[in-house]
Parts: sequence; structure tokens; C-alpha cells
Amino acid sequence: MKCRKCTQKAIINMRQHKLALCKEHYPEWIVAQTKKTIERYHMFTVQDKVLVAVSGGKDSLSLWDILWQLGYQADGLYISLGIDGGFGYSLESKRRTEQFSQARGLTLQIADVPETYGEGIPEMAQRTLRGRGKPCSVCGLVKRHIMNQAARQGGYTVLVTGHNLDDEAATLFGNTLTWNAGYLQRQDPVLPARHAGLVRKAKPLFRIYEREMTAYALVRGIEYIYEECPFVAGSKSIYYKELLNQIEADRPGAKLSFFLSFLQARENGLFAVATEEENTGAGGEALFTCPGCGQPTTVPELCTFCRLVGAKQDSP
Amino acid sequence: MKCRKCTQKAIINMRQHKLALCKEHYPEWIVAQTKKTIERYHMFTVQDKVLVAVSGGKDSLSLWDILWQLGYQADGLYISLGIDGGFGYSLESKRRTEQFSQARGLTLQIADVPETYGEGIPEMAQRTLRGRGKPCSVCGLVKRHIMNQAARQGGYTVLVTGHNLDDEAATLFGNTLTWNAGYLQRQDPVLPARHAGLVRKAKPLFRIYEREMTAYALVRGIEYIYEECPFVAGSKSIYYKELLNQIEADRPGAKLSFFLSFLQARENGLFAVATEEENTGAGGEALFTCPGCGQPTTVPELCTFCRLVGAKQDSP
Repeated sequence: MKCRKCTQKAIINMRQHKLALCKEHYPEWIVAQTKKTIERYHMFTVQDKVLVAVSGGKDSLSLWDILWQLGYQADGLYISLGIDGGFGYSLESKRRTEQFSQARGLTLQIADVPETYGEGIPEMAQRTLRGRGKPCSVCGLVKRHIMNQAARQGGYTVLVTGHNLDDEAATLFGNTLTWNAGYLQRQDPVLPARHAGLVRKAKPLFRIYEREMTAYALVRGIEYIYEECPFVAGSKSIYYKELLNQIEADRPGAKLSFFLSFLQARENGLFAVATEEENTGAGGEALFTCPGCGQPTTVPELCTFCRLVGAKQDSP
Repeated sequence: MKCRKCTQKAIINMRQHKLALCKEHYPEWIVAQTKKTIERYHMFTVQDKVLVAVSGGKDSLSLWDILWQLGYQADGLYISLGIDGGFGYSLESKRRTEQFSQARGLTLQIADVPETYGEGIPEMAQRTLRGRGKPCSVCGLVKRHIMNQAARQGGYTVLVTGHNLDDEAATLFGNTLTWNAGYLQRQDPVLPARHAGLVRKAKPLFRIYEREMTAYALVRGIEYIYEECPFVAGSKSIYYKELLNQIEADRPGAKLSFFLSFLQARENGLFAVATEEENTGAGGEALFTCPGCGQPTTVPELCTFCRLVGAKQDSP
């Protein structure tokens, strides 16, 4: 198959776009598509101070690479979670991230969970009942807290993550199977800061398929960590991704259309309007300010993160 | 495995209900469940004159059997569609339906499409562009028209169909993949008559799994037509049913919870309120009265059915 734009051999064929591109035109196309998404969804501008949450994986490093090429002011934030998994997952992903940022002269901030809180995510998870033996729930809580904290402290105006279409469609799929109103009414590729202690969030890769991000990282020679987090196996998100891949294989474009038609239907007024006021949480409930960290919480006391970390300090 | 209610051998184990029952308690349970659904969703009462649309398949004959046992005033309507498929599909399904009603002394009305309109569904479909080669779209249109017409002419207060949970969940699944607002805001196991020319509709089996209906028909000795309509193969509904079966196999109860949580979320106000006035269609648009048949239509002229049938009369 030949590249649509030149006579070179295509390295990827995107059935849902009926578009095949070569190793030169493909990364150009991805960069242009991301720019279009950032602008069309009013995510941020070149005036914004952007903080990219980087894990060392293909999506977040590629996103940082794209933002760098597009000339946005984008610094990176790596969160060391203290996960080993028998192959030094955290150590290796940190090494790749540092290598990536040094090669491009980019600014990388590092937040170290075991260093700061005396224990890694798996140990924190063991102390709580959240997640029924899987540390993913605690991990999400800790990452959200630290990302927001780092963005506020560093004066960043927007926090961006490398979630791709497969991630977003799988989350939507899971929340649709249970008709989770809070998610369906609120979740968005751009989340405004609804509380003084929150920073605006955006997902510039939400229209790009996971396999397209892998191809981008490979063709750009980005050395990302190939291994997934050891706790990912058997997760619901992987399960939903596989189901969606099956639908996509039968109907190219189904995954993209599922997510985009959701956004479109919501814009057309499908859902009852959720409270759009400031200081309300995902379910429209009032938000309080945590006396420990200043971030929002749904209870008028220490937030779940502060309790998680504080509980540790109280235990023997 | 033993029956939950006695010491006999169980003939079915319903994982989603954690319930195994024997050949005596199982049909009793299905009948009781259907009664509960009819009452809980205010579908109809013993005062209503009920018309059951029967195809000769397991679901509709079983439904008629259940309503008969429960003492509802339920007559049957069989629509002969003129579909052969190499095995006399319409002839055989009509024969089974007649046999069923005669054995129970029930009243059966028969509407014969080829006799009344000079051609069967496959021929009607060939003349139009609806359905891209598949007659299913034309078939649905014709059946809806005839069912409603027969219910009005016979003075029935409610029209019931044998749609089971698998049918309903598959339709919801397809409409969710495309976020079809008209369906999501309106479709319901009970549809009130929103126009003088429409009869109220209900689906008393919507909470019962397809395999449970098969087991019911078998244990009750109902001789239904085993073959599916020859045009069903490769349909979207079959595709969605298979996907849902896969999810169900991994998480027993997922199918039921998907459909029930949708109804619950809607009741809780998830969706923007669709126009609830009379004389509005599924998308909230105004409904006109067809000058040909008196049934509602979204255009101020002959309805699609009358045009479909009329077009034939004008052609050579």
C-alpha cells in the first residue's frame, strides 16, 4: 500500500479514515491532528503554561513530543509510584522519561511517592479496603492529587494527560454498561477547573487510536517503556478495550463514532443539564476545601488523599 | 443441581438470580415473574382487552400461554408475511400458531400480507430502497402498521409483543453505540398511545433472558417454529446479542443490569425530558394523521406504509 501523500510505502493504514501514510507523512499527520483537536476543543493556547503528566509510556511521551514540536510551553511531570512488578517498572519508566526529556532539553518535574510518603502505591493499597486487592483505585487517587498539586504549585494553567481514544472509549463503555449519570453528564476531553484548588484538564489525544499512538512512538524513535503496569492485567479497562477492538474489527470506525457521537448527543442536549456551577463535584454535589491540602473534597473534613496519607502517620 | 423449592433435579440454573429450578417450579416462576412485571410497570389489568402479536416463535407463543394461565383476556394476531426461505417459514409458523390456539381454545386473528396487498414482504422490499437489500426494515414497518390496525379495529386496549431481555438489551446496545437520542429518551417496555390512531404497547417479557424463554417453551411442550426468519442471519441485532452474551458469560447478570440500570437512570432524570405531549413522534416531532389509514405519520400526507402499498397499485 502506498502513502496517500507521496509514492513511498505506507507504514500504517487507518481504515476508519480510509487513509494510509508513510513514515514521514504519518507523524506529520498525527501532529497536525493533535493541533486541530487542541484548537477545536479550546484546550489551551501557546500562552498557557502546560504540565504534561508523563508515565514513560508511549502515549504520554508521544504527547509531550507533539506539544514540543507544536511550540507549546509544556513541562513534564513524572510520578514515581514505587511499583516494581519483578522488572523495576517504576525505575525503568522513570529512566526512559528522563532520557526523553534530556534528549530534547525539556523540563521534567519528578514527584516521588515512596520518598515523600514513606511507602509506594502497593503498600498504601494494602492498608485500605479500596479496590479489593488491586491498587488501581488508590493509584488513581494519589496520581490525581499529585498531578493537581504539582500543577498548582508550579503555576501551570492546564494539566494534560495522554489518554487516547481507546482509553476514553473503554471508560465510556464501562460507564454506559452501568449508566453512571455522574460520568455521562460530566466527563469530557476538556474539564474546566470547577474549584479554586483545581487546575483545568485536557486530553489532546482523545481522538487518536491506541495503535496509532504506538505507530507514532515507533516511527519517531521514542524509547518508551513497553511493559504495562503489572497491575493492569485483568482490569476492567482492558476487558472493555478488547470488546471495543472486536467491534472495531467488524466495523472500522465504530470506536471513534461511539465516543464522538456521545459528545455530539450531549452537546445536542441528550442529557439533563448537570449543575454547572463552580464548587460542585462530578455528581453535582457541593465541594468543600480540604483543610489539609486545599484541594476540593465532597466531605467537610480532610480529603480522601490526606486521610490515606495521614492514616499511615497514625498507625504503628 | 437441585431445585431451590423442592428436592427434584433442576432443569435450569439462572446464574444472575442464583436460582435453580425443576420442571415444575420453573414454569410457575416464569408465570409469576411475568405477572409481577405486568403489574409493576402498569402494563395492563384483567379489565384490558389484550392483543398478543404472535409469530409462531418461542417468545410470543410462550407469552400468550402465560397470559392465558394468568387469566388475562388475550387474543392472538398472526401476520402472514409471505416469507418462504426454502422451508416454508411463513406457512410453518402459521401452522404452529393455529395449532397452539386451537389446543387452548384461544381466539386467533390472521392478517395475510400477500392476500391483502398482492405480494409478500420480500417483494415489497425489492421495490424500495429501504434496508439496502434486507427486507427487515420494510417488514418492521408493515408489522407495526398491521398490528396497530388490528388492535384498533378489534377494540383492543393494549398490544403486547414477546420481546425478551436479549431483544431489548441488543436494541439498547445498538442505540447506545450511536447515541440515538430519540430511542434513549423514549423507548420503554410500556409505550402509551401518544396519538388517537395508536394503541398502547407493552413488552411483558422484557426482564426474561432468551434462554429462559426457550426453556419455558420446551418444558411447557409448546411446539414453536425452531427456525428463525431466514433474513435474520447477519443482522445487527444478532451481532449485538452475541456481544452481550459474551459480556454476560464473563459477568452473569450484566445484560439485565445494563437494561435495568438504563431504565433506572432515566427515571432518575439522566436524560433531558423529551416532549411528553400527545401527537409527537419518537424524536419529539409533531405527528399528523395519515389520510389513508388514520395512523400517525411525521409528514402531512400519506404515511410510509400507505405509500409503500399505494405505489404498488400505481406501478404496471
